[in-house]
Amino acid sequence: MVIKSDMGITVKKENDVSEWYSQVCLKSELADYGSVKGTMVIRPLGYSIWQKIQDYFNENIIKKNNVHNAYFPLFIPESFFKKEAQHDEGFKAEVAWIDPKITGDGERLAIRPTSETIIYDSFSKWIRSYKDLPMKINQWCNIVRWETEATKLFLRSREFLWQEGHCAYETKEECKKDAITIINDYEKLCLNLLALPVLKGKKTEKEKFAGADITYTIEAFMPDGKALQCGTSHELTQGFAKSFDITFLGKDEKKHYIFQNSWGISTRLIGAVVMTHSDNKGLVLPPKIVENKIVIIPIIKSKEVKVEKKAQELKLKLKRFNPILDNRRDYSPGWKYNEWELKGVPIRIEIGPKDIAKNQIVLVRRDSMKKKNVKITNLEKEIEKELDDMQDNLLKKEKNFLEKSIVKVKNFEDLKKTVKNKKIALVKFCGRESCENEIKEKTQGVTTRCIPFNSKTSRNEKCIYCKKEANCEVYFAKNY
Amino acid sequence: MVIKSDMGITVKKENDVSEWYSQVCLKSELADYGSVKGTMVIRPLGYSIWQKIQDYFNENIIKKNNVHNAYFPLFIPESFFKKEAQHDEGFKAEVAWIDPKITGDGERLAIRPTSETIIYDSFSKWIRSYKDLPMKINQWCNIVRWETEATKLFLRSREFLWQEGHCAYETKEECKKDAITIINDYEKLCLNLLALPVLKGKKTEKEKFAGADITYTIEAFMPDGKALQCGTSHELTQGFAKSFDITFLGKDEKKHYIFQNSWGISTRLIGAVVMTHSDNKGLVLPPKIVENKIVIIPIIKSKEVKVEKKAQELKLKLKRFNPILDNRRDYSPGWKYNEWELKGVPIRIEIGPKDIAKNQIVLVRRDSMKKKNVKITNLEKEIEKELDDMQDNLLKKEKNFLEKSIVKVKNFEDLKKTVKNKKIALVKFCGRESCENEIKEKTQGVTTRCIPFNSKTSRNEKCIYCKKEANCEVYFAKNY
Repeated sequence: MVIKSDMGITVKKENDVSEWYSQVCLKSELADYGSVKGTMVIRPLGYSIWQKIQDYFNENIIKKNNVHNAYFPLFIPESFFKKEAQHDEGFKAEVAWIDPKITGDGERLAIRPTSETIIYDSFSKWIRSYKDLPMKINQWCNIVRWETEATKLFLRSREFLWQEGHCAYETKEECKKDAITIINDYEKLCLNLLALPVLKGKKTEKEKFAGADITYTIEAFMPDGKALQCGTSHELTQGFAKSFDITFLGKDEKKHYIFQNSWGISTRLIGAVVMTHSDNKGLVLPPKIVENKIVIIPIIKSKEVKVEKKAQELKLKLKRFNPILDNRRDYSPGWKYNEWELKGVPIRIEIGPKDIAKNQIVLVRRDSMKKKNVKITNLEKEIEKELDDMQDNLLKKEKNFLEKSIVKVKNFEDLKKTVKNKKIALVKFCGRESCENEIKEKTQGVTTRCIPFNSKTSRNEKCIYCKKEANCEVYFAKNY
Repeated sequence: MVIKSDMGITVKKENDVSEWYSQVCLKSELADYGSVKGTMVIRPLGYSIWQKIQDYFNENIIKKNNVHNAYFPLFIPESFFKKEAQHDEGFKAEVAWIDPKITGDGERLAIRPTSETIIYDSFSKWIRSYKDLPMKINQWCNIVRWETEATKLFLRSREFLWQEGHCAYETKEECKKDAITIINDYEKLCLNLLALPVLKGKKTEKEKFAGADITYTIEAFMPDGKALQCGTSHELTQGFAKSFDITFLGKDEKKHYIFQNSWGISTRLIGAVVMTHSDNKGLVLPPKIVENKIVIIPIIKSKEVKVEKKAQELKLKLKRFNPILDNRRDYSPGWKYNEWELKGVPIRIEIGPKDIAKNQIVLVRRDSMKKKNVKITNLEKEIEKELDDMQDNLLKKEKNFLEKSIVKVKNFEDLKKTVKNKKIALVKFCGRESCENEIKEKTQGVTTRCIPFNSKTSRNEKCIYCKKEANCEVYFAKNY
């Protein structure tokens, strides 16, 4: 028998979230580090979560919003970046370039850190008339940003996978409406699929995307007291349209610039979901993103053919839950329990000779670890109920955690204390970049996360830092 | 009214396949050239075909064969290539490297031209015991090969999309069995989904993959008389296992090298399907790979509210075929017919006031362009029948074309003539690389495509070129 500590998590979540998280990702075989510094391998278990996110997204966001998937080149000419000064400034530090020996006399080629410029070059060729609008495109692809900070599986790596939506419109109103629809759809994805409540709102001027007029964001809050940006939607308005000369002939027979938005989520969501829900035994995952929702473990002593046969029958009966039947002979039941707990299978079914006699099984739920006997006749219904309940409970627990983590704060000292206590400070703020910079400096890196959509300020309220008039509420927190 | 020639194909397929093909791809909006030389943009219509291929593949090949999707890094250290000499030799001319300024003191990094080496580096870490085998992995990703020949949309570009399967086994027999299963599954995908018959067999020593013991291939035959390699499956046996030191502890408690295969298909399949089936009006596509299987065109004069309402009703009724309702007012029916023929929608439904009176519609099929009246009550059944029939007919036509294109040839002069006449020569062959090189030279580039699985030679048969003993039959043809 293999010894348990061989594969278990050796650090507790409550003691060292960072080390615990790395161990969970590696030991559950979600992901691995690549041989090239800064890269990661998404192993089958991790990739199956990504596929669940993709399926949900294609069905509930792409189709619903009349967006079409497409694919644009990995390589972007340097001159494209230069066309939009803010965008160039924002990305130039982390762009990886192709060896100039390859391109010869041609201009430098970047590996895409985001695809606004290469896509809008095509838009400028494709869009001629108002009849071509709206044009709504999405692509699923890999992205390269030459990070210098330490790699963190799913959360920070030099290459990651994402989707990026890019849409063009006749009017500013349509453009804004869709940008907001998408950030709301992102929130729904987090809530309904990932059981992950988020803060939602507008980025400050300082924190918005390089090239955007307005950036909307969703931010999850991790158990170590850091916020994690999980998705953004940008109103680019006409900045890129002007740089790339994307015009259309309107119904008025005059030339106009298009209005644009762009939006994205990435494999980082997998990191958010893992860090949020998992525990000291390993992965805990919302059932909706798990491919194999059940593992069946026959409790076999000597040669119990009957038990194995029954387990096979159950596998067939429960097919729609994609059950794993673990009938390996050279591992003990206890060893198997540990392995599948580590890998986050939502429901374990144990079946032994005594259970068969009673026409029942033992059902164990991964989140609560509660055991119960279930009659085989009721099994499918019961499993469905438990899966739904687990999905709901994970969300409820995290909603509670997020709510409790938000502290309304009236002065700068309390802001500092709040963040030190691993909470989020909700404060009145003037919105000026200079205030934000000073706060960041004096707090070793605390930043604004977003201005909530329902942000309210009255006339007499003052900025928490400069004491000038406040124009918004904003969340401050540490972040990834 | 817009004039038709504005968007129609201006060259006939029978006169200039190459120019006709480019126009079909561009004007139907399947794809576009990228701004960086050698790159392409896959537009929504093209990408929707890729998604149909992916869906079929994930369901019928990945799941069926117990393979799991994963994702490995884009960057491959130079030393990984060097480990397998043949592989390095085969790819080094077309590898794009990252700018050494980015990597600093580290070693040179390639952008993957294929992922054997980076994946097997992980395998060497992950595989310990026979209990870890078989390990069957697939990835969907982009691939970069710095081609110097002219770009041809879908068929030759510096970046393309593909899937690559990589599997490891305890025994040579399992490894071979799966390599052959996959090439058979590829053939089925071509037949059942793409209506594309292929030649299937083994590559000669000269033409096999760099690093493989045996390469299996499927090859489609294009209307311009050139073969197009559409998918390959390689028995790598233990070459990479030895270079990357991938061993496992066997049931015998001894160390053994694993056996490996790898296999792939790419977006090139889209090119094959387009070139094969399309005509002088534009795209003709097998219905199974088309997202919108129907376009409904109301024939409206003045203000026929009734017709538009009926068309809306039909759209709803036919929802499962994802119909497009083209009720644009500023285009004539004729203009719309041309547009949707160009874009390859399999079935057009025309409905006017007279049709409504008779409770019928006019149905036009894209492949045959045959019109018929169909009662609305029978419509769904009738559409299903026509779609099935279209799928079958396209396959039948191409099977016929492929069969007629194969000519059994007994001497070198006839081989040359056959290929000049845009046919495939099936000949007896000695299998030696020197013969193959000389034939290629003397024919301006005719190469062996494959040795069919049912290849038979008897003792007295001689090689078509050197007259020494033949050991196989082989197809010779021009190729892409």
